Amino acid sequence: MVTPQSEDFSKWYNEIVYRADLAAQSPVRGCIIIKPYGYEIWEAVKNWLDRRFKETGHQNAYFPLFIPESYLKREAEHVEGFSPELAVVTIAGGKELEEPLVVRPTSETIIGEAFSQWIQSYRDLPLLINQWANVVRWELRTRPFLRTTEFLWQEGHTAHTTEADAEAETMQMLDIYADFAWNQAAMPVIKGRKSENEKFAGALRTYTIEGMMGDKKALQSATSHNLGQNFAKAFNIKYLSRENVEEYCWTTSWGMSTRIVGGIVMTHGDDKGLRLPPRVAPIQVVAVPIYKTETEISAVTEALQRIVKELRGAGIRVHIDDRDETPGFKYNDWEMRGVPVRLEMGPKDLEKNSVVLARRDVPGKEGKQFVSQDGIVQAVKDLLDTIHHHMLQQAQDFTQSNIQDVHSHDEFKQVIEAGYWARGWWAGSNEQERGIKEETGATIRCFPLDQPGGNAPCFLTGQTADRIALFAKAY
Amino acid sequence: MVTPQSEDFSKWYNEIVYRADLAAQSPVRGCIIIKPYGYEIWEAVKNWLDRRFKETGHQNAYFPLFIPESYLKREAEHVEGFSPELAVVTIAGGKELEEPLVVRPTSETIIGEAFSQWIQSYRDLPLLINQWANVVRWELRTRPFLRTTEFLWQEGHTAHTTEADAEAETMQMLDIYADFAWNQAAMPVIKGRKSENEKFAGALRTYTIEGMMGDKKALQSATSHNLGQNFAKAFNIKYLSRENVEEYCWTTSWGMSTRIVGGIVMTHGDDKGLRLPPRVAPIQVVAVPIYKTETEISAVTEALQRIVKELRGAGIRVHIDDRDETPGFKYNDWEMRGVPVRLEMGPKDLEKNSVVLARRDVPGKEGKQFVSQDGIVQAVKDLLDTIHHHMLQQAQDFTQSNIQDVHSHDEFKQVIEAGYWARGWWAGSNEQERGIKEETGATIRCFPLDQPGGNAPCFLTGQTADRIALFAKAY
Repeated sequence: MVTPQSEDFSKWYNEIVYRADLAAQSPVRGCIIIKPYGYEIWEAVKNWLDRRFKETGHQNAYFPLFIPESYLKREAEHVEGFSPELAVVTIAGGKELEEPLVVRPTSETIIGEAFSQWIQSYRDLPLLINQWANVVRWELRTRPFLRTTEFLWQEGHTAHTTEADAEAETMQMLDIYADFAWNQAAMPVIKGRKSENEKFAGALRTYTIEGMMGDKKALQSATSHNLGQNFAKAFNIKYLSRENVEEYCWTTSWGMSTRIVGGIVMTHGDDKGLRLPPRVAPIQVVAVPIYKTETEISAVTEALQRIVKELRGAGIRVHIDDRDETPGFKYNDWEMRGVPVRLEMGPKDLEKNSVVLARRDVPGKEGKQFVSQDGIVQAVKDLLDTIHHHMLQQAQDFTQSNIQDVHSHDEFKQVIEAGYWARGWWAGSNEQERGIKEETGATIRCFPLDQPGGNAPCFLTGQTADRIALFAKAY
Repeated sequence: MVTPQSEDFSKWYNEIVYRADLAAQSPVRGCIIIKPYGYEIWEAVKNWLDRRFKETGHQNAYFPLFIPESYLKREAEHVEGFSPELAVVTIAGGKELEEPLVVRPTSETIIGEAFSQWIQSYRDLPLLINQWANVVRWELRTRPFLRTTEFLWQEGHTAHTTEADAEAETMQMLDIYADFAWNQAAMPVIKGRKSENEKFAGALRTYTIEGMMGDKKALQSATSHNLGQNFAKAFNIKYLSRENVEEYCWTTSWGMSTRIVGGIVMTHGDDKGLRLPPRVAPIQVVAVPIYKTETEISAVTEALQRIVKELRGAGIRVHIDDRDETPGFKYNDWEMRGVPVRLEMGPKDLEKNSVVLARRDVPGKEGKQFVSQDGIVQAVKDLLDTIHHHMLQQAQDFTQSNIQDVHSHDEFKQVIEAGYWARGWWAGSNEQERGIKEETGATIRCFPLDQPGGNAPCFLTGQTADRIALFAKAY
């Protein structure tokens, strides 16, 4: 049995990741091995995002893993943000290197240098590049998927002629991430802007999608940065304008990583194991034959294979579990692995020309239905859609009911201590924000894009505030 | 203009890679930036291989970039083969590491360790894993795509219960690589086995596909290794057999890398630039509108867009070149970039309800034809197929006519010095093979799988040989 979430969410999470076979431990500090079942979820993320990136005019490229140490130092905030986390190659080909090479923690610097050479004129803009890559950040505390020394991600890097174009790109990519979270991963994330304290090292403005996990902690699930002209100035990314004037570009960067796999686990999982949203589930339907006699085996198996073929033909991801184990063992196993739909078929179902469909998201009898074998494809498709919307609704209800409005410092502390997210008007300084963090462990997750408008007193300072902030403890 | 191949092939290659925009130079020694046009070729390789790997039961996973130094030392031949080429992380998170971490040159060791933990019984076998990853080998002489410090590849790693199963897997993957080379990249590679001197460090047997480049040098284009029980013994990869006996597994590994992009360039390119085989070409058809007056522009553009939409609907990769440049400029540009088909349309074509299709693989008037706009999709599809087969045939003729049979040491030296490949009966020792290499620069590229059978005297020693070898200078 798995440790219940209510007893120790963190322990539950670690157990699920390994027992559902998403990942395995590795001998390298802070690094996991992403096993096929976990990697397939990442492939679903990748395939969807890659298609959307291309539809919006981006092209993939690949830049070196190693970055000369001097490059990282060119943008002051950037190097300050990343230097405690760097892994450094000092020896190569049996010799000490003259200039150490940093293993990329992110690629703004090396891509900035490339852009400065590729961009000559306004005709070269916008330049819209994406990279699928591994990056390394030497983190003190690591957790599978959520924070690992090495992780996989995509990093978009673009250059534009105007601030407005850069801002539009930044928001477009944020919207794509939110679209993925809501409509593929069934994660009702909140779009917002980061505070000065929490923004990306070197950015003008950072936008984020924040999701509430099962323990009510927040997970920053993707970010999109308007880098202003900071990197353009540090790397001399200039273009000749239509008016023949040399100008600095406006650049952006944006990323989603394998962290999202952990977010999916923590948003939807329960005490029985994983619950995977159908659109990213490697296996959408597991088919379990039920039989006692030899004659039954062949009849059931034959009928089941026909159905599975039909489902696969319609693009549904189906697995037949023909292991020599009891149905009960198989049910538990696939519940642990979070497969959205179980399709059972026994001799009686065969007689009645029906199958049983059991939902992972609705336990017990209520989640079971008999369905005719005729029209099974449509029935399964509809059910997968229903499950997606149900899981999204559950997560939405959970998120909404765990965000509390606060109007005073005391109220804020109570709400955070009770484990909720706090939503309140905010006009505090960066310093006061740091004070709140020290006192309660909560940070501003974002200023939601969806604001009530108008003014009200800041819950901390009483000064007039023109926006609300969301505070929470976070991963 | 590009340096002609006949003048300096190596210079021609470097110029083409950068001028056709496949890659850009990077500030990191021996590393290139793969630009979108080059990366799209790699994506075509990836997508095709990934589908075939999955169809043959393999699953993707992801293992750490870093390998503890001690792991690499466990297989004696392996560490000897790779240690001169390693990049080593010695500092991370601001501190010196107790055990240095090697940036993976290949992953047999770290995957071997994982397999030893994942495999318990014969029921876990075969274990069929593939990884898409970057690897680093600190090479002395580097060339874009062909030999870079960091490169992208896939590495398959499998474990089996018997030697025969491992051998069958090794051959299956070699066949998939050859299928890709012949039928996608139009590269008529030769399948064969490596000599003891040339096999992978730690393998029992290495198989290869070898292609002849435009300068008649050989390119090892992918390899597939039967690792025997070498890594199983070094990493303790054991399973409990059906008879309840503990046994060592038999393992394999196999890989194709971004080197293949260089192979495509060097197999097909000519003095005008790249020639891309249609099935891997990022752009299969470039559409060039031809007009003089404003009225002509809109009429031609409208008709062209209709055709392009039709072609795209049929899955053909089309680009419209609507830049404000002359047709002549555009023709040269797309010839340089190797687009297989150019579709021209002007006011006269519009009147006649036709278009011009011009082939990159057949220069001048002979490569041009007028085609009706009705049925354009089928006409283009057929033409792309024709071009594929023509390019394959050209490369095959070139390869066949540049392999010479040799029967004596003198004949061998003449053939190699003249730049040909030498094919001859071989019964020499490893030592004699090394002697040949020192003397002529040629190595045994492979013992072709397709052997004449029987016996004949070795061209070097005169002793009875039971197989022929192919010798050549190689990249």
